Amino acid sequence: MSVNTSMIAVIVLGVALLPLTPSSAMQGLGEKVLIFPYETDFSFVALIPQKEMALRAFTLCMRVATELPEEREIILFAYRTADYDELNVWRERDGRVSFYLSGDGTFFHLPPLTTFRTSLCLTWESRTGLAAFWVEGKRSTYQVYKPGHSIRPKGTVLLGQDPDKHLGGLEAQQSFVGEMTDLNMWDFVLSRSMIQAWHYGHKVPKGNIFDWATMEYELNGNVMVVDDD
Amino acid sequence: MSVNTSMIAVIVLGVALLPLTPSSAMQGLGEKVLIFPYETDFSFVALIPQKEMALRAFTLCMRVATELPEEREIILFAYRTADYDELNVWRERDGRVSFYLSGDGTFFHLPPLTTFRTSLCLTWESRTGLAAFWVEGKRSTYQVYKPGHSIRPKGTVLLGQDPDKHLGGLEAQQSFVGEMTDLNMWDFVLSRSMIQAWHYGHKVPKGNIFDWATMEYELNGNVMVVDDD
Amino acid sequence: MSVNTSMIAVIVLGVALLPLTPSSAMQGLGEKVLIFPYETDFSFVALIPQKEMALRAFTLCMRVATELPEEREIILFAYRTADYDELNVWRERDGRVSFYLSGDGTFFHLPPLTTFRTSLCLTWESRTGLAAFWVEGKRSTYQVYKPGHSIRPKGTVLLGQDPDKHLGGLEAQQSFVGEMTDLNMWDFVLSRSMIQAWHYGHKVPKGNIFDWATMEYELNGNVMVVDDD
Repeated sequence: MSVNTSMIAVIVLGVALLPLTPSSAMQGLGEKVLIFPYETDFSFVALIPQKEMALRAFTLCMRVATELPEEREIILFAYRTADYDELNVWRERDGRVSFYLSGDGTFFHLPPLTTFRTSLCLTWESRTGLAAFWVEGKRSTYQVYKPGHSIRPKGTVLLGQDPDKHLGGLEAQQSFVGEMTDLNMWDFVLSRSMIQAWHYGHKVPKGNIFDWATMEYELNGNVMVVDDD
Repeated sequence: MSVNTSMIAVIVLGVALLPLTPSSAMQGLGEKVLIFPYETDFSFVALIPQKEMALRAFTLCMRVATELPEEREIILFAYRTADYDELNVWRERDGRVSFYLSGDGTFFHLPPLTTFRTSLCLTWESRTGLAAFWVEGKRSTYQVYKPGHSIRPKGTVLLGQDPDKHLGGLEAQQSFVGEMTDLNMWDFVLSRSMIQAWHYGHKVPKGNIFDWATMEYELNGNVMVVDDD
Repeated sequence: MSVNTSMIAVIVLGVALLPLTPSSAMQGLGEKVLIFPYETDFSFVALIPQKEMALRAFTLCMRVATELPEEREIILFAYRTADYDELNVWRERDGRVSFYLSGDGTFFHLPPLTTFRTSLCLTWESRTGLAAFWVEGKRSTYQVYKPGHSIRPKGTVLLGQDPDKHLGGLEAQQSFVGEMTDLNMWDFVLSRSMIQAWHYGHKVPKGNIFDWATMEYELNGNVMVVDDD
């Protein structure tokens, strides 16, 4: 396994997080894995979307592995604007997986995240409120969550940390430790067959918000970018 | 199942372990399984490497089955030089699987070892420190462990016991009970596809440190060598 | 499922068990399942072997399903001569599966018996003492158990009850409740490939001690013989 030069971790002191002093933006994560090797309150990856995230529907997919204990909450995806947690995905302290659109969240009983990679997608559509997680290409039961709601644009997406205010307020006990790869996001709901195709690594329409292969991103703190094997 | 003549167990008294009085070296374990039938502080198999184990990377694979209870620690592989436990692999008391390079170890949450054979590999590379276990061909989350470290040569590899000093200091409560087979070791990191090929019993490059088919080994105490079925 | 005429249960009072007053012997269980519908101390099936059971090796296979709770001991197979439990197979109170050759037994951690049929084989060879269970065609870890021992002939095989003396002393709390089918027994150790073939329902050499298709048997108490579906 060869390690990208970008793995030379840029340590940013937690106290220096406001304002952010990121490593300069890089592009392209095709065949790469992000490794968050240990618990910190300063390691994260900021993702720069290809278009503004004013969303009334989306599909978010990633492959994720973690060794964190079951009873530890874990931030899996955080999109925040100045005043709101616009779209957060968590593994909760009780093991459930949840997502939040600025306010109370909705909770799903999914198979546990483990040391082996889980393929995880989330779909939501404002019109009906239908929300579901997809694990290894299999859909959870639908829940109806915030029909009519809109996600606001002009925020920041972070992997690895949950900012309690815009670009700050990070907590080690919520941080992600483990591996993430192949994160993609679309501004519409993918069909079952498309999600299964993505799960099996087949060709699917490129994410028009995030496309792992051409992703623009900024590494902060101690995150490694390594070749997938 | 026909039993090799080498199964006539050579009982070495525990007190006589320093210096070792092994059975004479034998060669070749192709299609054979090592059975450690019960808990002892005197049964082990010493493995003679094909080349010195001065290592800055390795892949270690084996198939292993045990009925020992979950809360019992178990030594799975021990390579020790005069002053150091150079490379030890354990199933810990809390069920995690760990490995140690002369000092504190690193711990992985893996599916439990059972009465059925588990295919288990471990990869580590000094340059990056990336370490992972592979269970049935599936990689665990990477951990970053001792980047820059080197494993020292001129030690002894034991299966079945953990020597607390070079060639001595064995403890029954740490001993291995169960079956081991198909142990191979390479001085580099095998690719995912190679590890999966090994898991499925397909042809892979022979281990250049240990190759089960041509393994040179010494039986001590009560260890059986039987035909695999 | 159509019910065989032989299902008209012959109720034998527990107190009348010595001497046995069985229904007359019947033959052939091909495509049939034995159902032990509830807990009794009087329902059992006696199996008449094709040859005397003076054994220095054997393979015993059956398909078995039960809803009995984990902490309840269950007799799975009992072969008893006048003075000895020659060959008993149990699911123990602690969930382990065990077998006994006239004296202390040996215990295996296997996946639990469930409401779904488990394909279960047991192999033992006197020469080496190697004993193993096979679950769904997968072998457990070998245990070394009573090498050199011989099983005595001229006893009785019961399914459903454990006789504490020859042909008597039955206990409801040890009885089998559930389904058994496809029991076969050979006086030698079948190879892995043969056991897997049996598991998958492929053609294997007929059991030379018990062959389900041509089995001679006597029903006692409340046992149903129904078509397998």
